[in-house]
Amino acid sequence: MQDNSLTLLTDLYQITMAYGYWKTGMAERPAVFHLFYRKNPFGNPYTIACGLNPAIEWLSGLKFTADDVQYLGSLKGADGRALFEEAFLNYLQRLRFSCDLDAIPEGTVVFPNEPLVRVQGPLLQAQLIETALLNLLNFSTLIATKSARVVQAAGEDSVLEFGLRRAQGMDGGLSASRAAYIGGCTATSNVLAGKKFGIPVRGTHAHSWVMCFDSEPDAFSQYAAAMPNNCIFLVDTYNTLEGVRHAITVAQQLKANGHRLLGIRLDSGDLAALSIAARKLLDEAGLPEAAIVASDDLDEHRIAELKQQGAKINVWGVGTRLVTAYDQPALGGVYKLAAIQDEEGNWQHKIKLSEQPIKTSNPGIQDVVRVSDAAGRPLADAICSAGFDGESLEIMEEKSGESAHFDAKLGKSLLVPVFRKGDLVYDAPNIHEIRSHCLAQQALFREADWSTYRLGLERGVYALKQELISYMTIK
Amino acid sequence: MQDNSLTLLTDLYQITMAYGYWKTGMAERPAVFHLFYRKNPFGNPYTIACGLNPAIEWLSGLKFTADDVQYLGSLKGADGRALFEEAFLNYLQRLRFSCDLDAIPEGTVVFPNEPLVRVQGPLLQAQLIETALLNLLNFSTLIATKSARVVQAAGEDSVLEFGLRRAQGMDGGLSASRAAYIGGCTATSNVLAGKKFGIPVRGTHAHSWVMCFDSEPDAFSQYAAAMPNNCIFLVDTYNTLEGVRHAITVAQQLKANGHRLLGIRLDSGDLAALSIAARKLLDEAGLPEAAIVASDDLDEHRIAELKQQGAKINVWGVGTRLVTAYDQPALGGVYKLAAIQDEEGNWQHKIKLSEQPIKTSNPGIQDVVRVSDAAGRPLADAICSAGFDGESLEIMEEKSGESAHFDAKLGKSLLVPVFRKGDLVYDAPNIHEIRSHCLAQQALFREADWSTYRLGLERGVYALKQELISYMTIK
Repeated sequence: MQDNSLTLLTDLYQITMAYGYWKTGMAERPAVFHLFYRKNPFGNPYTIACGLNPAIEWLSGLKFTADDVQYLGSLKGADGRALFEEAFLNYLQRLRFSCDLDAIPEGTVVFPNEPLVRVQGPLLQAQLIETALLNLLNFSTLIATKSARVVQAAGEDSVLEFGLRRAQGMDGGLSASRAAYIGGCTATSNVLAGKKFGIPVRGTHAHSWVMCFDSEPDAFSQYAAAMPNNCIFLVDTYNTLEGVRHAITVAQQLKANGHRLLGIRLDSGDLAALSIAARKLLDEAGLPEAAIVASDDLDEHRIAELKQQGAKINVWGVGTRLVTAYDQPALGGVYKLAAIQDEEGNWQHKIKLSEQPIKTSNPGIQDVVRVSDAAGRPLADAICSAGFDGESLEIMEEKSGESAHFDAKLGKSLLVPVFRKGDLVYDAPNIHEIRSHCLAQQALFREADWSTYRLGLERGVYALKQELISYMTIK
Repeated sequence: MQDNSLTLLTDLYQITMAYGYWKTGMAERPAVFHLFYRKNPFGNPYTIACGLNPAIEWLSGLKFTADDVQYLGSLKGADGRALFEEAFLNYLQRLRFSCDLDAIPEGTVVFPNEPLVRVQGPLLQAQLIETALLNLLNFSTLIATKSARVVQAAGEDSVLEFGLRRAQGMDGGLSASRAAYIGGCTATSNVLAGKKFGIPVRGTHAHSWVMCFDSEPDAFSQYAAAMPNNCIFLVDTYNTLEGVRHAITVAQQLKANGHRLLGIRLDSGDLAALSIAARKLLDEAGLPEAAIVASDDLDEHRIAELKQQGAKINVWGVGTRLVTAYDQPALGGVYKLAAIQDEEGNWQHKIKLSEQPIKTSNPGIQDVVRVSDAAGRPLADAICSAGFDGESLEIMEEKSGESAHFDAKLGKSLLVPVFRKGDLVYDAPNIHEIRSHCLAQQALFREADWSTYRLGLERGVYALKQELISYMTIK
């Protein structure tokens, strides 16, 4: 690559539409888009918003370089002529991001159809950033949610994220390590993620270490001599319980030198039975504090199953199934136009119809208001018009048509200002603060009564949507 | 990030092991590792090797920067002391990649247990590069294979890759676009992939374009005015067949101006019925050459089903399910030590035992020999010792214990030299050459008779493996 610009990380149709808006004089027309998803992944009752900081980073670097426009200038249409004219390419090269962007902070519990991001600004720009926003938020949100599920299954135990080798590309690994930590993992094996994001890193040795020595006891004791302060021995290279015994022998040597065996790791076989047997051996050897780490294609289901079987595992190493969200490897987030000003400067509200009612988008400039009781327990979420200031909040459930009333004073808007006219106005929390927020949100929603929790449209938005559906259908 | 070094894109245990090898004086001991996978993904009869060029790029940049070692120096062990001593960090900073690396060229059909990459060199280095090699080859190989399946289902039709917005991170998108093109896709929507890799890019407009105008006919005709040489109209924003009629109206305008409607795109609903109806409308309007592009969570199964239903679709836009390999989002590639020299310089062959025979690795320094008949049709693959020069090639099938003999002169080694003592000696083909090679391989193996195709170990490797299994089990 000639330069490191990531501005072209987009679908070509964003650029062809940009060209169209520029040609038709609509490029600067104010418009509003929302980014949302339609269904919680993994059958989870909620989703964890994630990916905003990477999106901020991408937006902050948004700039068509000379290389970028040169490349775009080389693209040809069906008639062999250039797809884009010179003046448009010059326009792109001068373009400076000038939208307002509001978003729900990372680590927050969110629900279907709620705008995770709202973009308001010149149509051309607001449209142009769709693909990158979706790419970044879809994946991080997916993995943070998966991580929260795994961490919840592990209960009081730590979860380590080990997924880099089978992640979907380098950044698939890096982004996943970040999102997994935010979701509640304790550490990662990914050293670059540690360096870049400040996530704690963990790691000891692989089977190959053991195989490089004449015997397993020799391998363990040489490792202990080299790194006495980082001893978790992988015990299943040959025979797992023999391996545990060899680890115990070395643990005695470590003790004699003022160090201690941190634990052992099981990576194959019947993890429940082996962990129980290993725990017994370790306890009998006077090593009750030595942890048992387990790995081997784990996910939340397998962890729950092993706990059910009485497994004596203290630390769960979770890789592939976490970082690829193996059972649902994509979140179907979308980015939809909801309003655009006409030539007179009046907002026109927009919906995208669909034969499937769930796919009909919500109109207008939106916010999410979360209602909590006096003790701070969340009761309901309403998709409102931005700036909603009614005294009573009536939430319409679209499927049932039922409504519920709440005191609007108990509601709090979830979206916060991130960019104003292209300037970053958001003081982003650091990754540890985001993780703490996320764990607090998980604790809050662990108590939620889903049978009474209300999710829906504020009456005004609901009415607007019905009106537009009638209008569009008749038209 | 302080610098752009990707050297730390690895698991921490690679660095702790490196430290251990350095401390024990084993860092420079010659060792051999192989990268392979154990099972073809998606139930495919074969897999497409991919990801070598990205791996070459990563290896060529392998260098611990001052920032990297500073970060590593900041890591602490359980006792609060530094994990790594200063002299080791200095060693890392001076480290220069000096391994030999051989690999199977990208786009080649491969089978389980065959070394896609063989690394021979100083133990510390050969171990260190495991994680990045796995990350890069696992994902690209997975997606190239998925792409080959989708392309095969599409038969003579083109397949466009549209997956960026739901890919696993930015690079999950970029790498997927590359691998999908190699596997046989015609083009991508991903502009950065187009710029970086020279892949053809395609794109026209989204629903939001239509929603920005007062009416669909207006939206289409304004688009046609702006980009008359790139008109594929998305017709399902409101009512699909109405949309087709509106596209036809604009097609007449285009014709009058010396341009033509390239096609329409269907993105929802009953794609079979709608495409049949749309084809009829287009043909009746004298537009038989206008293509029908379809998208909407397509994959090879859905394409086959639609073809079965008589869908009149010419171009398939495939996104999420291709770029995330939705039904199997990770390839379980592994990287195993197979030989190491002892202090006297003699090779010690190594295997990793497992209770599951499929997980017991193959020993020794390996190559893959593919046997073809006189007409060039492939008949068998044998995992051989590197440099095998017997006259007869006896291939042992491990499961059945059956063997088959081939004339070794009909065999050809699949691995090619890539690095020699750390220097790149491989003249890598460009992406179009790789894709052509891949399509040729697919055509070759489309004719294969899987009931007679032989896959196994050359007798010498087989015997060595049995011997080591007995030895390890007795020990």
